[in-house]
Amino acid sequence: MSSYVLGIDFGSLSGRAAVVRVSDGAVLGTADTQYRHQVMDQRLTAGDGQALPPSFALQNGPDYLEVLWDAVPRAVEASGVDPADIVGIGLDVTAATVVAAKADGRPLSTLPEFADHPHAYVKMWKHHGAHEQADRMVRLARERGDAWLDRFGGVISSELMVPKLLETLEEDRAVYDATDVFVDASDWLVWQLTGTLSYAAGLAGYKRLVVDGRNLPSDYLAALNPDFARVFDDKMVGPIIPLGGKAGELQPEVAAHMGLPAGIAVAAGNIDAHANAPAAKGVEPGQLVAGMGTSTAAVLCHPDLRAVPGAFGIVDGGVVDGLWGYEVGQTSVGDTFAWFVANCVPQRYFDEAAEAGVSVHQLLSDLSAGQAVGEHGLLALDWNGGTRSVLMDPNLSGMILGLTLQTPAESIYRALVEATAFGMRRIIQAFRDSGIEVTEFIATGGLLKNRVLMQIYADVLNMDISIATNAQNAALGSAIFAAVAAGEYPTVAAAADAMGDKRVAAYRPDPVRAAGYDILYDRYSVLHDYFGRGTNEVMHELKALQRRVLREGRV
Amino acid sequence: MSSYVLGIDFGSLSGRAAVVRVSDGAVLGTADTQYRHQVMDQRLTAGDGQALPPSFALQNGPDYLEVLWDAVPRAVEASGVDPADIVGIGLDVTAATVVAAKADGRPLSTLPEFADHPHAYVKMWKHHGAHEQADRMVRLARERGDAWLDRFGGVISSELMVPKLLETLEEDRAVYDATDVFVDASDWLVWQLTGTLSYAAGLAGYKRLVVDGRNLPSDYLAALNPDFARVFDDKMVGPIIPLGGKAGELQPEVAAHMGLPAGIAVAAGNIDAHANAPAAKGVEPGQLVAGMGTSTAAVLCHPDLRAVPGAFGIVDGGVVDGLWGYEVGQTSVGDTFAWFVANCVPQRYFDEAAEAGVSVHQLLSDLSAGQAVGEHGLLALDWNGGTRSVLMDPNLSGMILGLTLQTPAESIYRALVEATAFGMRRIIQAFRDSGIEVTEFIATGGLLKNRVLMQIYADVLNMDISIATNAQNAALGSAIFAAVAAGEYPTVAAAADAMGDKRVAAYRPDPVRAAGYDILYDRYSVLHDYFGRGTNEVMHELKALQRRVLREGRV
Repeated sequence: MSSYVLGIDFGSLSGRAAVVRVSDGAVLGTADTQYRHQVMDQRLTAGDGQALPPSFALQNGPDYLEVLWDAVPRAVEASGVDPADIVGIGLDVTAATVVAAKADGRPLSTLPEFADHPHAYVKMWKHHGAHEQADRMVRLARERGDAWLDRFGGVISSELMVPKLLETLEEDRAVYDATDVFVDASDWLVWQLTGTLSYAAGLAGYKRLVVDGRNLPSDYLAALNPDFARVFDDKMVGPIIPLGGKAGELQPEVAAHMGLPAGIAVAAGNIDAHANAPAAKGVEPGQLVAGMGTSTAAVLCHPDLRAVPGAFGIVDGGVVDGLWGYEVGQTSVGDTFAWFVANCVPQRYFDEAAEAGVSVHQLLSDLSAGQAVGEHGLLALDWNGGTRSVLMDPNLSGMILGLTLQTPAESIYRALVEATAFGMRRIIQAFRDSGIEVTEFIATGGLLKNRVLMQIYADVLNMDISIATNAQNAALGSAIFAAVAAGEYPTVAAAADAMGDKRVAAYRPDPVRAAGYDILYDRYSVLHDYFGRGTNEVMHELKALQRRVLREGRV
Repeated sequence: MSSYVLGIDFGSLSGRAAVVRVSDGAVLGTADTQYRHQVMDQRLTAGDGQALPPSFALQNGPDYLEVLWDAVPRAVEASGVDPADIVGIGLDVTAATVVAAKADGRPLSTLPEFADHPHAYVKMWKHHGAHEQADRMVRLARERGDAWLDRFGGVISSELMVPKLLETLEEDRAVYDATDVFVDASDWLVWQLTGTLSYAAGLAGYKRLVVDGRNLPSDYLAALNPDFARVFDDKMVGPIIPLGGKAGELQPEVAAHMGLPAGIAVAAGNIDAHANAPAAKGVEPGQLVAGMGTSTAAVLCHPDLRAVPGAFGIVDGGVVDGLWGYEVGQTSVGDTFAWFVANCVPQRYFDEAAEAGVSVHQLLSDLSAGQAVGEHGLLALDWNGGTRSVLMDPNLSGMILGLTLQTPAESIYRALVEATAFGMRRIIQAFRDSGIEVTEFIATGGLLKNRVLMQIYADVLNMDISIATNAQNAALGSAIFAAVAAGEYPTVAAAADAMGDKRVAAYRPDPVRAAGYDILYDRYSVLHDYFGRGTNEVMHELKALQRRVLREGRV
């Protein structure tokens, strides 16, 4: 008799539930539910429809619950599994998606008096309203010489939880005061399932800036804003649950609503990108699991704590309990390719792609696939969206060099792909320089479907590339945590070994191409340091001029 | 009673005749004739139709004569002028367009035994078959420490006459041996008109490398190839006629064919870009006359001989007799914009341009016209076609920096326009650094029609820009030389003053924008030197890798 677990992955636009067999990780049934209000980035459609500032990206908390009531029973039905055999449930959400709640768990936005307050809604990961607060946090921490900042690569993204809360305090005091609990959407959902508020270790460490179990110092918080001093003490109180741990048991009322047995284990909530790691068997020390999409978010587990330049989150037990979890990444990867296709590609490529029945991305990749390394004569820097890897600098910008009167669009596209691969190689180099060997590169995410790109990565990195094979990779990861929380496996690593899946060395470097890329990477590194480390400040100067123009109408 | 002159401008695809009033330069009638065989760069269509190498660009000598027999009488008729009142004739041709002829003037290609020999045809200015020979000429001159090389900026373009003759010697010995006279197309046409072979001072100095009246040393020629030692002594014998001088008189037979009076003055032939200068009143010391099109070719006259970096031809009397003529320019200007439009612009711009009834170039310019200096955040280097200005380096390449995920095509277009303006500013700076003040910038050529571009040039150069007003500017210039040759004016300067035309200060710099561009030009200059002067050799290395790939299939 088999047992089963349920994994639920909450993405940016929908949530997907997967029923997974504990013994081997087979995904037997899935279903997904779109969020009713999607992303509110133009108008507050769940409230009075007011226009929102351009940096806002909100969601409606109750929309997530519909995934539980709708997608979960459908996934179970699709799987053919007897609900009585389901022994655990785990979930993951896009990271740093923040809920303001009352003490009983109701989102503030559901109270009539706050329905028209944007700050009472869920602030998505990509809500950038707290840009000023994030900058202020960094400046202050630097002035004070606070060591904790190093754990985050010396930067604090406006996407993180704390700046978003400071924004609420400073922009809508009524919402802040009426909020009893600030909580990540992932922990909020676990609270809805278990009836008990707790905080998962990964989210607490990476997004709430809890370092080695200690909250941010209250004198630091007070210096940011005197009324912010007690935000942790008053509004974020609860135990921290290790990843792989059990947050609680499924409450009878919600269990009935979902068609599941009451009392089954509910795992600590997770960050979607991190749930990918065990699903692709990537939680052993030194394995780098990269989610490659519009941006690249990668994690690596290791027993040693090292100061790795470019790591913007280093958390004890941040990915799995018992190992240091390193978070690294690249701001713009697929985003840069999308910018290029939208702004710099002539119609004939679109026509040809339509005729061939492929995407323009694929066409451009295929057209350049036959090129030898160096044939296009180009070299690019992958900083169109700034960089959050070893240089941690949002004010750098993209560059392309080697253009001639014959350079076609597909060559530029290839050079941009190569630039992102060089950027990833630079991250791997930073690990190695810090004494942490990267033993395996495991790729997951949307860019996997581009085989030309994947081969370029293998050649540039001069490493075998393993790839995640399961289409529901994050949901599978959450199911793995559920299996551990249910006691079916002693550790996440053991569960990952049994339930995870990947194709090892799906791409292997070609020695000739790898040798060519060694030369180009060397040239990339020189430009990387020249423009990125202050020898030539032109990129910063151009951004400063641009800001002055936008502010004052002239330089 | 008025007198009139005839100016004929032989372009790359057609020749245009203009009848001009001597007293005031009024253009009273024009006509043009297309060359029957156009440019032969794929097949030898005037011969056996054989395929030609990609670097070849040939023409058929007799095609030029059809302009004389066809366009000239039509221009006279259109003008309503009595042919008896026409007192002189002048002409200009694209430079370094070389004819191989028999002693009686017949082009070798018209002899049946050479009709199928590509090297027996006219080698156009843009014939690049002599690349290897040009490189060899430079290497040898440098090894020998020959001072004459400095007059040509230390480089010899494969477009010049001498490498093209060496190519003929080494590639088709039969043609070389059967050739009695090598002559520029301009001098060849004058020869057809006058019955006497002579060489005009400008072409001799700039394209035939005759320095201060002295031919290239025969030991140098012998070292290039022993059989080349006597090329000047045997195959290029004739007097050198100063610019503004009279090469001879119109022979009765050709006069009858053209419907003109026999015996009228025929001026020394000219280079098309140089004929522009007097037509736009640009032959006073310090006036820079820039022909701005696919590339920019500019001339400046000055009484002093100075070593100006970037000048690739410094010739005594090279533009007008009595002054040093400096030739400077930029390899790719409109070519770079054309590359961008063909390879990097999405369809929506083409649709919008079609709807507005403007070119895509104009649309992109107009879309960016409202931007303040620095607003787009970009900086580019104008080297897509290499550079033949102060760095004299065909192996440099284009670069663009400051790209973000929001950068639209019109911003890149504007950055490319600005880059070419910075390139021109660098040339003007080189004159000034050498002690030659540039007193006026006079623009001619196809880019004049883009008013946004012209204003950017005024702002970047921080100079008033005068513009040529006559659509037939080069033909008018040749008519001015004809008037001087006919004795109607004592000097070219006097004739230019009476007959030339320009709009002074048609564009004036805006002080605010000029101050902004001072900042950007400073940053341009740093990158110019960094990539162009050996600090970072990445552009050369990329070209070398590219060449190795094309040769060996891998780096």
